[in-house]
Amino acid sequence: MPSSASRAAPQPLYKQIADTVAKMIHDGVLRPGERTPSLRAICDQHGVSMSTAVQAFVELESSGLVEPRHKSGFFVKFPPQALFDLPGPPRVPMSGSLGNRHASLFDAVVSANVIALGGAVPSPDILPTVKLNRMLAEKARHAGARGVMYDLPPGSELLRRQISKRMLKGGAVVAPADIITTCGATEALMLCLRAVTKPGDVVAVESPIYFGILHVLEALSLRALEIPTDSQHGLRLDVLERVLKTQPVHACIALPAFSNPLGAAMSDDAKQRLVALLKKYQIPLIEDDVFGELPFGPKRARTCKSYDDSGLVLFCSSFSKTLAPGYRVGWVVPGRYYHAVRMAKLTHTLATATLPELAIAGFLAEGGYDHWLRSVRTIYKENVARMRRAILEEFPAGTTVTTPQGGFLLWVTMPPKVDAIALYDRALAKGISIAPGHLFSLEPRYTHCIRISCGEPWSPRLAAAIHTLGALAHRQIK
Amino acid sequence: MPSSASRAAPQPLYKQIADTVAKMIHDGVLRPGERTPSLRAICDQHGVSMSTAVQAFVELESSGLVEPRHKSGFFVKFPPQALFDLPGPPRVPMSGSLGNRHASLFDAVVSANVIALGGAVPSPDILPTVKLNRMLAEKARHAGARGVMYDLPPGSELLRRQISKRMLKGGAVVAPADIITTCGATEALMLCLRAVTKPGDVVAVESPIYFGILHVLEALSLRALEIPTDSQHGLRLDVLERVLKTQPVHACIALPAFSNPLGAAMSDDAKQRLVALLKKYQIPLIEDDVFGELPFGPKRARTCKSYDDSGLVLFCSSFSKTLAPGYRVGWVVPGRYYHAVRMAKLTHTLATATLPELAIAGFLAEGGYDHWLRSVRTIYKENVARMRRAILEEFPAGTTVTTPQGGFLLWVTMPPKVDAIALYDRALAKGISIAPGHLFSLEPRYTHCIRISCGEPWSPRLAAAIHTLGALAHRQIK
Repeated sequence: MPSSASRAAPQPLYKQIADTVAKMIHDGVLRPGERTPSLRAICDQHGVSMSTAVQAFVELESSGLVEPRHKSGFFVKFPPQALFDLPGPPRVPMSGSLGNRHASLFDAVVSANVIALGGAVPSPDILPTVKLNRMLAEKARHAGARGVMYDLPPGSELLRRQISKRMLKGGAVVAPADIITTCGATEALMLCLRAVTKPGDVVAVESPIYFGILHVLEALSLRALEIPTDSQHGLRLDVLERVLKTQPVHACIALPAFSNPLGAAMSDDAKQRLVALLKKYQIPLIEDDVFGELPFGPKRARTCKSYDDSGLVLFCSSFSKTLAPGYRVGWVVPGRYYHAVRMAKLTHTLATATLPELAIAGFLAEGGYDHWLRSVRTIYKENVARMRRAILEEFPAGTTVTTPQGGFLLWVTMPPKVDAIALYDRALAKGISIAPGHLFSLEPRYTHCIRISCGEPWSPRLAAAIHTLGALAHRQIK
Repeated sequence: MPSSASRAAPQPLYKQIADTVAKMIHDGVLRPGERTPSLRAICDQHGVSMSTAVQAFVELESSGLVEPRHKSGFFVKFPPQALFDLPGPPRVPMSGSLGNRHASLFDAVVSANVIALGGAVPSPDILPTVKLNRMLAEKARHAGARGVMYDLPPGSELLRRQISKRMLKGGAVVAPADIITTCGATEALMLCLRAVTKPGDVVAVESPIYFGILHVLEALSLRALEIPTDSQHGLRLDVLERVLKTQPVHACIALPAFSNPLGAAMSDDAKQRLVALLKKYQIPLIEDDVFGELPFGPKRARTCKSYDDSGLVLFCSSFSKTLAPGYRVGWVVPGRYYHAVRMAKLTHTLATATLPELAIAGFLAEGGYDHWLRSVRTIYKENVARMRRAILEEFPAGTTVTTPQGGFLLWVTMPPKVDAIALYDRALAKGISIAPGHLFSLEPRYTHCIRISCGEPWSPRLAAAIHTLGALAHRQIK
């Protein structure tokens, strides 16, 4: 079957086969979740060798159309961003069942008896616990009066100097005086929203989006406008642009580096375009970079902040995913909103705890952080790969899993018949906590999705948990 | 001059003289800030001994009408609560100059070159710095993984158990499970308001009121309703009661134990009546007890929470005035609003820093806290007494100073001609920071008042600062 494109070199055989299968998918002959013709069937049908058939499927997989499943062949993927295009009207998040589930996720994290796959929390086994605690002990012994006194905003200069150096690795030239320390990125995010919005304002967010952000919007009486987000490339700029032309948006929150829950990474080009687009409309961009230091590759990507020439980007991050969640040390670079964020910090918590700040500053000053990050990135990469493989093996046919290039979160899209809340309830009864997709949107878009955290090194215990989850999901589609 | 009251035993001579002077004050013959007739003149005029004249003035002083001034005789006091009775309409605090001054007060606290009398911050010389930091170092060395991990709300059980014991000393039976730890009382207050109000709601507060509370109200788009507050007895319940009959109030904030800035203490009876009054209208009471552990006497008073039988009292406190402001450890007992406050904590800062919590818990568990409090109360009492004396000596005639029975704050009412902002600006130029009265109300009620913190032990440095302040104030009334 030669290609019909005139004069063009005929496509290689494997491409032609891939195109044929792709057409079947696009035409709906093969539907999401269904098994594709087997390799053997392809060989017979097209009269090609097994290696050509395999090549065709590699092509289909890399274009995101099919998904290999261990010992079961290939299946048609669910296209995640096909679920919606233009967002509906902005909505104020509603508490209630969402709130209760949010709280119970955290209960699971702290419960020793529950396998906590629901919270995006790193396992202490992975963190440099001993070294950090030793640093804190040393700072406490030598800090004297300073240790017990307020470290009022903007917070420890020692720490801000270290953060300034780190931000340079993301391409942003930020002076220590531009930084305000916070009680983690959670507080940073809230301070930013307090600085740039008022009740009733519309905030554009990714979709699916970390439920904590929906709660913060709710707490501040803001309306969320969910922008479709590609599981590989992040926030859909084309959609955002269309939205900005037609309705007021007062702020935008993006997680360009390994979004939560998708693990998507925006390209440098896309980040630059996002910053330029929002500048055009004079809309502040709140950049949440908590996973930014955790790429699977050797080098962290540039930040949106690095493209900010107008002070409209408010950059938020923390050490909670990389060093010590319990120290509650984060920071914000508020750009032109510095004064408002500082005032908000004073009314919010007055100050960040002094000695944890000094301990983190000491840890960073000692120079071991990059070395440490390299090793932890390898661990997370391995965790994610093994968890991903296990899910694809254990979950019902048609299940797809994101392929993040950093962080430690997986977004699992199951066949539409599976209800994530039912799965959540049944899993919890068996001592396993997951984050049901319902939490990640104000619309019922992700009711067959779950977020799985890979913050803990792979183990038989985790393998058994995934086996159990898979069996529970299977039971729902019988 | 026998008393005209028929049949009643004639009043002692000194009382008769006191009555005569009191009548002159009430009739406006003697006006606030004016010098009274001298003791010598009283002796001559009434034909009495010097000791009788002195007794008369002791009587006048104890009834709050006159104020002795070192080497200058007695002066008529400004009645502080005569400034207003029924509050005006509730107002949303406006940021701007208020916000800037608020921030600059904190700048002064952290600046080594400024004598910081403006912030209500204890001096580290008074705090058990070494012992606390040693405790934190020990906890950090031995906490292991727990030290770096989230201590998610409600927070450390060890600490909550200690807090529960302490709350019993204020008469409140509160289980550890009723408590949520916070990043200081600032966060506790904000979480409570988030739990019980929505934007636009009316919150009754004391007047004058700690400016931090006005800022929190502003941040949450709440309207402040300022209730006159007596410098001795606290919130005017009679006024509050009249207000509740006529307009909606959605929450009330009170500092029954050594209010900020007045240092007023409500009687147990008044606290009980306040709780009952708000219960009648089903209005939540946010009780701020940050100074509650710092009475000058040996025993702390009961809390409003101890009279709460309906869960409407949300109790907030911290260790920032007594142990370590920089540890950022406070707590809230939210009563019937437990779930809402816990959710607000999750969205606000997610968790309180783990190791500072454990260090405070360890300090409390060792049993030295009460011993420590006894000594620090003596120090604050002495600081306050010496500061008060110095102010009365150095400031213009007509200046009055509160007589708190706990805490470490003084509220100084100067002759109305003195402008506190001008004084603030000139003092800051000379390296002295004070809190101008303008910050403590949304109305221009306290423009001739300042708040002075006595968190630092008395010293020639402080004596010189008060001398300078006094001279600056004198210059304004020339």
